[in-house]
Amino acid sequence: MRAYPRPLARLIEELEKLPGVGPKTAQRLALHILQSPPEDAVALAEAIREVRARIHPCPQCFNLTDEDLCAVCADPGRDDRLLCVVADARDLLAVERAGFRGRYHVLQGLISPLDGVGPESLRIAELRARLLQRPAAEVILATNPTVEGDATANYLADVLRPLGVKVSRIALGLPAGGDLDYADEMTITRSLEGRREL
Amino acid sequence: MRAYPRPLARLIEELEKLPGVGPKTAQRLALHILQSPPEDAVALAEAIREVRARIHPCPQCFNLTDEDLCAVCADPGRDDRLLCVVADARDLLAVERAGFRGRYHVLQGLISPLDGVGPESLRIAELRARLLQRPAAEVILATNPTVEGDATANYLADVLRPLGVKVSRIALGLPAGGDLDYADEMTITRSLEGRREL
Repeated sequence: MRAYPRPLARLIEELEKLPGVGPKTAQRLALHILQSPPEDAVALAEAIREVRARIHPCPQCFNLTDEDLCAVCADPGRDDRLLCVVADARDLLAVERAGFRGRYHVLQGLISPLDGVGPESLRIAELRARLLQRPAAEVILATNPTVEGDATANYLADVLRPLGVKVSRIALGLPAGGDLDYADEMTITRSLEGRREL
Repeated sequence: MRAYPRPLARLIEELEKLPGVGPKTAQRLALHILQSPPEDAVALAEAIREVRARIHPCPQCFNLTDEDLCAVCADPGRDDRLLCVVADARDLLAVERAGFRGRYHVLQGLISPLDGVGPESLRIAELRARLLQRPAAEVILATNPTVEGDATANYLADVLRPLGVKVSRIALGLPAGGDLDYADEMTITRSLEGRREL
């Protein structure tokens, strides 16, 4: 016996396809699933099927939803003048948690030539069409301050400026509770550049 | 919108029940499952169901199997004189990989009073009955060299010695490639105690 019985080995293989899950972790998860109450395993299997069957991108902003329009697009109490552009649904939720109450546009990724992701792979054409149809006062580019996030923001600024819309970028600087002594030079440089009069 | 749509939130909840999976990891795994090819998600859900439906403990040694008897018990080419006692199927596989070709008995845990696991929760009565029915020349106690593993080995030695069987414990010492300078005192003490004449 050089390996686990077939159904267990298969579950381990499937779990290993998940990000950050190596052979040891997959084995531990599989044995946990095997030994947990049967209703937990059924609930997990069911939740996986359901998420694939029912979740789809919102046709307007490409946020994730199980309805016709996502919860933000369907909300009449939002400020239509502000459109916040994010890479994915995770970043959208992070901005939501911070209290932003405008509209969103989810790019479904960031420009990354090394990964074969060009502007045409993202929802940029849809963003442009959306702004032409229903202009916003300001588009806030809230992509991460990384190489890909900055490149995407710069590309978007070039595409959107001709539409006559104000385009802004989230501030880059020290995080709340941060320490100058521990911050990297790029962060301090950006923080100085972004200084505001008090 | 303070949270993900319901089916996605439910999958995140279910994933959080897995060991070592916190809210951030659960979110990452759920979004991966949502964005991976549909056949991968179906395969994962199916594998979870299958493992629960088809894997059960071997009635003889309590190793995991999807057959009547596990692969080791069903193998006629094993040395019946050696019976290796392990805590779980994972440890059994580790001993197999090392090349052991006797029989096994899987305890399904270790004695751990703090976790409410006493000897009666383990497959010790079944081990005793098995040895009475079919005596072995030697029982090798291959539980981990931890507080629980040592306590379980000592308990088993007391239970099994009256049966007239030779009871041994795996050697505790420096791991292959180990370094005395980095080893803890307990390991060095055990390694000295277990010294062998060359």
